[in-house]
Amino acid sequence: MKALIKITLKNGVLDPQGKAIEHALDSLGFDGVSDVRQGKLIELDLNAANEAAAREEVEQMCQKLLANTVIENYSFELVS
Amino acid sequence: MKALIKITLKNGVLDPQGKAIEHALDSLGFDGVSDVRQGKLIELDLNAANEAAAREEVEQMCQKLLANTVIENYSFELVS
Repeated sequence: MKALIKITLKNGVLDPQGKAIEHALDSLGFDGVSDVRQGKLIELDLNAANEAAAREEVEQMCQKLLANTVIENYSFELVS
Repeated sequence: MKALIKITLKNGVLDPQGKAIEHALDSLGFDGVSDVRQGKLIELDLNAANEAAAREEVEQMCQKLLANTVIENYSFELVS
C-alpha cells in the first residue's frame, strides 16, 4: 500500500522559503502571485494488513517523526 | 485562484533525504516501510483571468523556477 503524506506549515508560521520563491517569481515577471507556502511531500510504501491498520501506522509516523506538530499540519491519503 | 504544485524526484534519481527518513522510521520500529521519497509541495495564490491562463502561468513557473526538470517531475492542480 502506498501512502502520500502532505506536510504544510500552520497558518501564521513564518515561511522564509515561501517568501523567497514569491520574490523570485516576481523578479521573473510573474505578477499577482501571493501567499506562497512551501511544504513537504513524502511518498512511501508500507506493508499493512488492511487500510485501517495502514491509516493508524501512517498517523503514528507523522506524529512521531515526519511532522513537527507544533508548527506543521499533516494530511495523507492511501493508495492501494 | 489557488495552485497546489507537487514536485517529486524522477525515478532512478537518488534521494538521500528519503533514505534518511526510511532509516529513521525503521529505528522507530515501523517495519515494512520501503521506497520512501521526499518531494516538495508549493501552494500559491495567483491572479489569472481564467483557468486556462492560470494553468499556462503555473506551467511556466514550474519550467522556469520551481522544478529542476532534469531530475524532477511536477504536477499541479488548481482550486478556484
